[in-house]
Amino acid sequence: MKIIQKPNNARGTRDFGPKEMSLRTHVFTIIKNHFEAFGFQAIETPAMENLHILTGKYGEEGDQLVFKILNSGDYLSNTEAVDFSLGSKLLIPKISEKGLRYDLTVPFARFVAMNRNDIAFPFRRSQIQPVWRADRPQKGRYREFYQCDADIIGSDSLINEAELIALFQSIFSSLNLRTNLIINSRKILFGIVSVLGVSDLFVPFSVAIDKLDKIGWDSVALELISNGFSISQLESLRSLFQFQGSNNEKIQLLDDFFSDNEVGQQGLSEIKTVLDFSALNGFDNSNILFDFKLARGLSYYTGLIYEGKACDLPFGSIVGGGRYDNLTEAFGLPNMSGVGISFGIERIIDVMRELNLFPDIKTSASKILLTYFDLTGQSIALKIANELRKSNIASEVYPEIAKIKKSFEFADKKGIPFVGVIGEQEIKDDNITLKDMKNGEQKLLSISDLIKSL
Amino acid sequence: MKIIQKPNNARGTRDFGPKEMSLRTHVFTIIKNHFEAFGFQAIETPAMENLHILTGKYGEEGDQLVFKILNSGDYLSNTEAVDFSLGSKLLIPKISEKGLRYDLTVPFARFVAMNRNDIAFPFRRSQIQPVWRADRPQKGRYREFYQCDADIIGSDSLINEAELIALFQSIFSSLNLRTNLIINSRKILFGIVSVLGVSDLFVPFSVAIDKLDKIGWDSVALELISNGFSISQLESLRSLFQFQGSNNEKIQLLDDFFSDNEVGQQGLSEIKTVLDFSALNGFDNSNILFDFKLARGLSYYTGLIYEGKACDLPFGSIVGGGRYDNLTEAFGLPNMSGVGISFGIERIIDVMRELNLFPDIKTSASKILLTYFDLTGQSIALKIANELRKSNIASEVYPEIAKIKKSFEFADKKGIPFVGVIGEQEIKDDNITLKDMKNGEQKLLSISDLIKSL
Repeated sequence: MKIIQKPNNARGTRDFGPKEMSLRTHVFTIIKNHFEAFGFQAIETPAMENLHILTGKYGEEGDQLVFKILNSGDYLSNTEAVDFSLGSKLLIPKISEKGLRYDLTVPFARFVAMNRNDIAFPFRRSQIQPVWRADRPQKGRYREFYQCDADIIGSDSLINEAELIALFQSIFSSLNLRTNLIINSRKILFGIVSVLGVSDLFVPFSVAIDKLDKIGWDSVALELISNGFSISQLESLRSLFQFQGSNNEKIQLLDDFFSDNEVGQQGLSEIKTVLDFSALNGFDNSNILFDFKLARGLSYYTGLIYEGKACDLPFGSIVGGGRYDNLTEAFGLPNMSGVGISFGIERIIDVMRELNLFPDIKTSASKILLTYFDLTGQSIALKIANELRKSNIASEVYPEIAKIKKSFEFADKKGIPFVGVIGEQEIKDDNITLKDMKNGEQKLLSISDLIKSL
Repeated sequence: MKIIQKPNNARGTRDFGPKEMSLRTHVFTIIKNHFEAFGFQAIETPAMENLHILTGKYGEEGDQLVFKILNSGDYLSNTEAVDFSLGSKLLIPKISEKGLRYDLTVPFARFVAMNRNDIAFPFRRSQIQPVWRADRPQKGRYREFYQCDADIIGSDSLINEAELIALFQSIFSSLNLRTNLIINSRKILFGIVSVLGVSDLFVPFSVAIDKLDKIGWDSVALELISNGFSISQLESLRSLFQFQGSNNEKIQLLDDFFSDNEVGQQGLSEIKTVLDFSALNGFDNSNILFDFKLARGLSYYTGLIYEGKACDLPFGSIVGGGRYDNLTEAFGLPNMSGVGISFGIERIIDVMRELNLFPDIKTSASKILLTYFDLTGQSIALKIANELRKSNIASEVYPEIAKIKKSFEFADKKGIPFVGVIGEQEIKDDNITLKDMKNGEQKLLSISDLIKSL
């Protein structure tokens, strides 16, 4: 007796069938083409990384969310009975030395450190691959998802920030997705806590205000107090954060606020420069919004930071990125400044679907199905199919002698737009009946006219 | 003090830098285009599968080569002290419920079983994704590698076999790689052992002769004897296997050999039909070689089987495939016959590299680097770059005001074919000096002429 297993997906993972793949390919292709147009060179890194590469890069929570791979063979060979009382966390290094990549940034940093002598810096690299996180699955959050990253590493020029912003504008303009790009600088955030006299609280400050959108000011304020902010500092902060105005008005405000603060001034000057550069990119840049409340969660950012959001849906951020100065330092390559942008492709696809922004994308399939009623017709069908393919017309042959209705139904279900019928008369006259599945029209064509007509 | 980690790859895995990616993309794109031309619809499945999906499908050795993923969180919570004395193998189900996919065939079978109601059968599916195996790494054998599969499932017509052979011919013709396609049928192998009166030894027989190429007749004969073949049976087998001749001569020989054997006759008739169908594909099919010694290792094949080999390098097989009748049965969907072909893309790339078959592929990079000597030039460079990109000319801006020599060296190292220089005079005259990095030629152009010229 055969054992029958219920077929299912691992929790939090998805299959992509032909329809879904067509939509995904549409978005991936546009992003890829723009990456290329901006001179980014694609790389790929392996799904598995040694754990010492991944650990300690994503904070303690991140470390726990890395999927660990059991050592192959007798993975218990390095353990002793006493090890099992260590608990799950301490046992890991004894039975697992590899994990699945958690993002594309750390593997990229490893790649740069390993290939430093072959790379022409500044290096424009793009990378589009899946990553894995042992997060609790929920709507819109998966355990396997693609990231699409572009980075320019080995130059601290603000030209690079401007180039990534032009890339952002250019991609969403092609996708027809209206977005805002919120920008800020870590240096401005540092300037703010410095002016308030609590520069030592920079990290908890950034972590707390990163949650403003999610939990609101009151909860953030509580968190800041518990981290050592005074009531009067909170008041200054609140009045600063309440300010509404144009980019220029915000720059004006901070210019005064930072009159005595060098780092803050520097951050502000960088914002101005990047906005000036961006004005040259040929896009309407009114969607670039300076917001000095933007913090970004990741600790490795050191300069400009930004987040992209869809205008027409409250969907959280669909793009993130910023400048980092020390990404490769952990791998023995210090002083390698870079700036990156990451397109949240899964969310972009979800947003585009909800906003009905996908053009009428044909599920990739044959353009024509060839059908017939006898063995002679079958041979002719095989021959014609291969001729059509040589003219780049995707074709398939219905594999059996069947009632014509059956092949029409098949073409219809699969979304094949044309059926070519090879009947007795067609064989005699050396032509083919072409049926347009959309409007039902039929016409008799010679093979060369068939090729032209498709 | 920062801890510095030696950056390295997990054993048996590779990074692909821009140069390697260009070669890979060349091969992947050709295969993908042909898959589409034949009406195959792309799907993707997740890297992680539940272990009950994978286990028992690849034999005991295969089960061991599946990478297992530690359960997330407290993976020891389902264990008791006594479990650790079970040994590595028996402990696995208690601490790991997922594994990395080992091939694309089992996930495909799971996909078909789960989506049986939405799929239009016969379903032409293609899938190009990496797989992982905990094999001992060695030259040309990696722990992560891509598979490229095309299958037609839900039809037992031999038209499908012929279509896959046409696909094979068409892909290698585009790749300019000379190949042979060895074909046989499991039914012929079964017929042979039946005529010899040992049909119960079919499985060990197939396993043994699958190794003929690697270990030679003497070792295979020893293995067959140990499995219960008699000396006289071996003699009959040897004289059969020694036969040299054309496809037709081999068919003739077996026609006599199978005069009393129905399964053998059926296999032979299928070979004939497929060869007849293939004659209609428009390619020179003299590279299709019927060889009744071909066995293929995998147990799920039930009909026609084939293997592709490079003519000009003794590299083992670079393509494999065949017909299976029961692939989805383990997932509760019986009687779903299909036929598949798998392109060993990693080996194909290795062979093409060794035979110098790659055309002169430009490492994907910008077509032009824009460089300048002052802030005005910098602004103009940013503007021109974005204009060029709108005309699909991949461009990048050198990020700093630098000596012209430095930007030439950079373009050279990165393989950027043109440098556009925006100097004082160019700014005044509203044009640009274009330097061809190949021959050193320079010319002065207006921006619209620059776009035309690139």
